[in-house]
Formats: sequence, structure tokens, C-alpha cells
Amino acid sequence: MSTPQVEITHSMEFSAAHRLESPALSAEQNAATYGPCYTDHGHNYQIHVTVRGPVDGKTGMVMNLVDLAAIIREEVWEPMDHKHLNRDVPFLKGVIPTAENLAVVCWERIAPRLESFSGCELREIGIDESRANRVTYRGLRA
Amino acid sequence: MSTPQVEITHSMEFSAAHRLESPALSAEQNAATYGPCYTDHGHNYQIHVTVRGPVDGKTGMVMNLVDLAAIIREEVWEPMDHKHLNRDVPFLKGVIPTAENLAVVCWERIAPRLESFSGCELREIGIDESRANRVTYRGLRA
Amino acid sequence: MSTPQVEITHSMEFSAAHRLESPALSAEQNAATYGPCYTDHGHNYQIHVTVRGPVDGKTGMVMNLVDLAAIIREEVWEPMDHKHLNRDVPFLKGVIPTAENLAVVCWERIAPRLESFSGCELREIGIDESRANRVTYRGLRA
Amino acid sequence: MSTPQVEITHSMEFSAAHRLESPALSAEQNAATYGPCYTDHGHNYQIHVTVRGPVDGKTGMVMNLVDLAAIIREEVWEPMDHKHLNRDVPFLKGVIPTAENLAVVCWERIAPRLESFSGCELREIGIDESRANRVTYRGLRA
Amino acid sequence: MSTPQVEITHSMEFSAAHRLESPALSAEQNAATYGPCYTDHGHNYQIHVTVRGPVDGKTGMVMNLVDLAAIIREEVWEPMDHKHLNRDVPFLKGVIPTAENLAVVCWERIAPRLESFSGCELREIGIDESRANRVTYRGLRA
Amino acid sequence: MSTPQVEITHSMEFSAAHRLESPALSAEQNAATYGPCYTDHGHNYQIHVTVRGPVDGKTGMVMNLVDLAAIIREEVWEPMDHKHLNRDVPFLKGVIPTAENLAVVCWERIAPRLESFSGCELREIGIDESRANRVTYRGLRA
Repeated sequence: MSTPQVEITHSMEFSAAHRLESPALSAEQNAATYGPCYTDHGHNYQIHVTVRGPVDGKTGMVMNLVDLAAIIREEVWEPMDHKHLNRDVPFLKGVIPTAENLAVVCWERIAPRLESFSGCELREIGIDESRANRVTYRGLRA
Repeated sequence: MSTPQVEITHSMEFSAAHRLESPALSAEQNAATYGPCYTDHGHNYQIHVTVRGPVDGKTGMVMNLVDLAAIIREEVWEPMDHKHLNRDVPFLKGVIPTAENLAVVCWERIAPRLESFSGCELREIGIDESRANRVTYRGLRA
Repeated sequence: MSTPQVEITHSMEFSAAHRLESPALSAEQNAATYGPCYTDHGHNYQIHVTVRGPVDGKTGMVMNLVDLAAIIREEVWEPMDHKHLNRDVPFLKGVIPTAENLAVVCWERIAPRLESFSGCELREIGIDESRANRVTYRGLRA
Repeated sequence: MSTPQVEITHSMEFSAAHRLESPALSAEQNAATYGPCYTDHGHNYQIHVTVRGPVDGKTGMVMNLVDLAAIIREEVWEPMDHKHLNRDVPFLKGVIPTAENLAVVCWERIAPRLESFSGCELREIGIDESRANRVTYRGLRA
Repeated sequence: MSTPQVEITHSMEFSAAHRLESPALSAEQNAATYGPCYTDHGHNYQIHVTVRGPVDGKTGMVMNLVDLAAIIREEVWEPMDHKHLNRDVPFLKGVIPTAENLAVVCWERIAPRLESFSGCELREIGIDESRANRVTYRGLRA
Repeated sequence: MSTPQVEITHSMEFSAAHRLESPALSAEQNAATYGPCYTDHGHNYQIHVTVRGPVDGKTGMVMNLVDLAAIIREEVWEPMDHKHLNRDVPFLKGVIPTAENLAVVCWERIAPRLESFSGCELREIGIDESRANRVTYRGLRA
């Protein structure tokens, strides 16, 4: 009989400072575009990483959550927690640290780490900046 | 290289009274169908509005959350917060104010407001009536 | 050896409509005082009832949560859930249904029910109207 | 005019004990695979059941939430709340009680109960084991 | 008959950057004391302001929540939201922006604003830096 | 000038199985007293530990949260997370693992660890068994 495909999501919190400023915009344009976000501020970010794969009949798991948590910790939490995203994170050099861009960058860091987990694929990265604002990236490009 | 398509979700709370009563049903049928909801009561509704679009390379944003929040405020919060949904909201005249219908009505009000945001489209309206009950509408009709 | 005194809190949600209007005020004064709350609206109220007493050595409990939950259900949830607080609740006749007054009324209903639980006393009634607004009453009068 | 298709989600909490142990693995392999989960422990599980269907024009509802709640209560809450999932639940005999397997089993119990609700179909079962870990099953097999 | 004394709590969120560094410590001591907090990072802070007073018989309120919210907005939210607490907030000059110190400073700003509300007194300032860490100040000095 | 006294609270989650059974009661009495809790089940417990002390002028802290977290981890999380509280925890031998008793036991384990932190004292242990049930112990005996 066919195998159920299930999604598992692991969530982690990191606290970081950032400001939004685009090198393609003048100071006036940056202030008009980003408003209060043009100033240094910060968030408790919640990242939610979703992986889909077949449920292994021997273990009952899609992949071991210990492994997924370790990947998120290494690729996201260690480089970004208690950091200033505009200055302290090498892989964010030249990236405007909007939640949209953070989700895309996290996807690019996490997806290759999952290749060795047979049958598993990254499905979704969600990032909550606050209770009111969330972004979701599913690897779609157009 | 192709542009990532990201979803952004903005959430807002409004407090409203309502009761469920269908003009197509008798009083006995209404009472049997809606039970306690046939009486005036109310909720802190959470509405979650999701928009998908390309991440603008110049700003790092799908659309400015300030604009999305303003649209939700004008189309949903201002007419419905601290109101009785059966009596005080012109665009709900003749609509049974179930969460399902509220989600569809909110979709129809918000979707046209997004047309001027190039590449952006409304993807999902979620409404939580309580921690136990949520509806989701994605514009699907059949 | 002496017995530890512990507080137990049981929480319950009820959904109700209300409006704020004082008979001691003119229509203009009511509108100025209560603003949008002068219109019918509603909430998912969270009530939190705290009882303090000695931990019974035989059971390890202050009082049975089944009993506390039953009292809250009878005194608060059954008369107020899915009701209009200004019209449908006999014991709120003549009471302006602010959260402050609801907490005091709930105290007066619940406290006598606890008298038969030896050593237990009502310590606190908390009511959340929303994530932003909470009231707490501890039986204090002055 | 065509009818909107809406999803409704009802959530319920149950508290259960479990441990993870696979009959296909040795004691050493079980300990290495499941780590601390190889020992008896427990969770407050949140199950979220999502049904999609057309909004009935007469009632404004996809299906009556009272009916959906009753199904979840009978199929999930009554057999699993305040139970040891490895020992006390007949339909989990021989199932490793990972969240992935619980979601699949709940799907198989709930889906047939929805067949009598015309136009409605089960779309998603979500189970949160904790704030950090969630699984989602949408009936997909491969 | 005597008047019930009730506490009302209003909560507000602000997003800010900070780092912890003491002028009384060397760089090595600062790093040892504050660990990752010695680097710029940020939080979504939740502030909870509790006021106690008699319930006004005419209005059913301790004080108008609109007034309390305006005070918090002016004294806390406007100067601190979307700011770097070490650099951008005049009244934090020379203050190490730990949650403890923020609570004390907020108390000192809010308490005098309540003096014109007859019978009301500030009882508690709570600040959550994250879901895991909260401080509470009740004006106690020793 | 006098020093502000502030409370800090650190929260941690642990997942454990338990059942309620009193050696002082017959099987029938146990079943009648504890109902479904007489069967093995489990929870995601949230423990909240509150310490009060003066704010150190040099550091701006009551005590280092790293130290408080380490104490909770050693005294509570390590011995109880992913365990069966009736069987696997030496210091719970002979203790009926109600939330009330867990709070008292955690107090007795944590309080002595704080003695070396000058001026600090344990003020409160809160334990949430679920969103509906919390206990609080403040060291009071009578």
C-alpha cells in the first residue's frame, strides 16, 4: 500500500536587530518607503520550517526532529540570534533584511541541507516578525 | 535570475456582536440550526489577509505592509469593529454573518483594492472566531 | 509539619455581546465616555478564577478542578455564554457590563459556592476582554 | 452565480502519554533513534481538523461546527484524551505513536464520518505536539 | 456600601533594538556578564501597565482605557517603538537597557501621569522581552 | 537613593507523563477522586519561576537570567522532561504528582540554589498544566 506523505514543521525563535535601508534609494526615499523601520529596531522572530516526506514505516517519522532542529540551529539561529542583521551576518551582506528576504535566504541555506534526507523536501519557510506580520516562502520563483 | 514569489500576511483584531438567523428558515429551524448562536453574542475576530507577489529587488518587499494594513483597516476594521454585524454594517445587509460569509465578503472588498499593486494578488483570508474555530477562503468557487 | 497553601486557577472562555451605556449619563455623555463601546459589539471573554487553600495530604489537591470548573460553568458560562449581557442575563439587570463590573459580579456569584470547600477561599477573578485589556478583582473594597 | 468554497477548521486539545519505540529496531537502535522520546512522557496535543465545502446559501455554513466538533470528540478526544497512546487505544495497536502516525490515523477515522455531509471533504489534519513541533497531513500518498 | 477596588491592565507591543553594556565594566567583564546580549539585537517587547482604583458607580470603570492607552502610547510607545534603546531615547541616556531598568523607567514616566485620575494608582509594570523572560516592577524600593 | 526591587520570571517547558493515584485511597476512591487523571496521560508543562531582588546598579540586573535558567534546567527540566513523573523521578517518590505538589517540590529544589545570589529570593513558582489550569505557590505554609 502507498505511503502517506506528511509535513513536519519545527519552529524556533531568534532575537535580532535590523533596519531597512535600500542602496537603490535616496535617504528621502528610504525614509518615505520604510518609515519607522528605517531606524534601528528589533524583533523576536519566529521561524517555522516545513519539510514534506514519506512516513518511514520503521520509525513512524518523516525525518528526525532532532536533525531538523540541528539544521535550523546551525543555519539560522547561530548566525542570526542576538545579532544586528545589517552588520553581523556575513550571508546577509548586501541583502535588505526584510522578512521577505530573510525567508528566501533561510530557504537557500536550509534546502541543500535536506538533500541527504531521502524523500524529504523543504516545503515552506514562515517567519513571524510580530503577532501581526508573517511572511511565507515556498520556493516559488517567476 | 527569476524573482522569488513570497506571501505576506497581516493580521488585525476587531470586536463585534452578531447573531445567526436565516430568512429561509422558520424560528424553530433557526433555533435548531444555530443553537446558542441564534442569540446575540460576540467575538474578538482575528482576520489574517495574505497577499502573494514578487519581492521587489529595490525594496525587498512584496508590498508595503503600511499599505496592506491601511486597506484592511478601511475595508474591515473601520466598518466592523465595535459594531453589531446584523444591523450596523451596510455591506452585510442580507448576509447571514457566519465566519464563512464574513471571509467571502472581506475577500470581495479587499481584492479590488490590491489591483493597483503590480504583481500582487490576494491569496487567502483567514478569520478566527475563537481559538477553536477558524475559516479560510482562497477565492475558490465551484 | 505545616501545610503548603497553593493557588489554583481555572480559565474558561465565553462569547458575549454587550454595549456600554450608563443611565446616569445623557446620550451625549454616554457617547463621549464610551466612544465605540456605546454601540453593540462583543468579545471572547477569558475568565480566570483563582482559589487558595491548603494542599490536601490525601489527594495532593487544593480542591478538585472538576468541582471548580463546574462552579464556573454554572455561575458564569451557562448564564453568559452566547448572550447579550445588557439584555439576557438576569443578574446583570441594572449593571453596566464593563469588565470591572463583570469581575465583581462573578466574584459575588462564585465566592459563596466555595464556602463548602473547607479551607479554600476565592482569591482573584481575572477577565480578559482582549489580548490588550484585562481586569483583576481580589475582593477588595474601600 | 457560482458558490464559494470555504475551509473551516475546528481545534481541540487532548492530553496523553506516549513513548516512541519501534518493533523493527533493537533497544540500542530505539534509544539512538528516539532519544528522550524512548521514555514515557506526554503532551497537550492540539488537533486541527479542516473541512472544505461550498457555503450553503440557506445557512451560510460549510457544515455545522456542532457536527464537526462531535465527530472530533468521538473519533479523537474520547478515545485518546487522558490515555496512554501505546497501551490504552485499541486503534493504535501496532502503531508507533509519532505525531505523523497520529495524524494519519485521525484522518482515516474522521474522513469516512464526513461522507454524509454533501459536498464536504476532509482537507487537512494538523497536530501540534508542542509550540515547537507540528505535523500536517492532507491525505497525500505516494 | 463600600466600593470595589479593581485593577485594570492595558498591554502594548513595541519593537526595539538594544545591547547590554555597563560603563562600570571592562570589555572583558561586559562580554562575560552579558554574553550574546553584549551585541546589538532586539525584541518585540510587551508592556503591561496595571492601575488600581475604585470602580466609578456612574461609569462602571476604574479609569477610561482610552486615557490609559494614550498615556502608555505617549510615554512608552512613541519614544521607544522602532528605536535603538541605547542611542535614540533621551530618557534612557546613561541607563543600561535591561528589562529591569526599562520597567523602572517606565514606572517613573507613567506614575505622575496618573495623579490627575482621582483614586487611581499605578500598581505594576510588567515587561516581557520574550515568551521566556518577564520582569515586574511594583514601585518597591529598599 | 534607595534601590528598586524588581521581580524577574523565567519560563521553561517540559513534557512528562503522569497519573494521579493516592496510596491513602482505595481503587474505587481513586477513580472517583481523579476521574480520567487516574489513567496514564501527559502534559506540556510550563513552569514560571519568579525571583525578587534589588537591581544591581553595575549591571542593571536582579540576577543573570543565564544563571536562573541554568538552575531551572538542572533542578526541573533535566530530571522531569520526557519522563514519567510517577516512576522516573527520584525526588517524586511517594509524591502524588498533582500540579500543586509539583510546584511545592520545585520550590524546595530551587529556593536553596538561590541563597548564594545576594539579596535575591524566590517569590513564586507557577505551573501551567494546560491553557485552562495553572497553580501558583509562593512558599506560604499554614
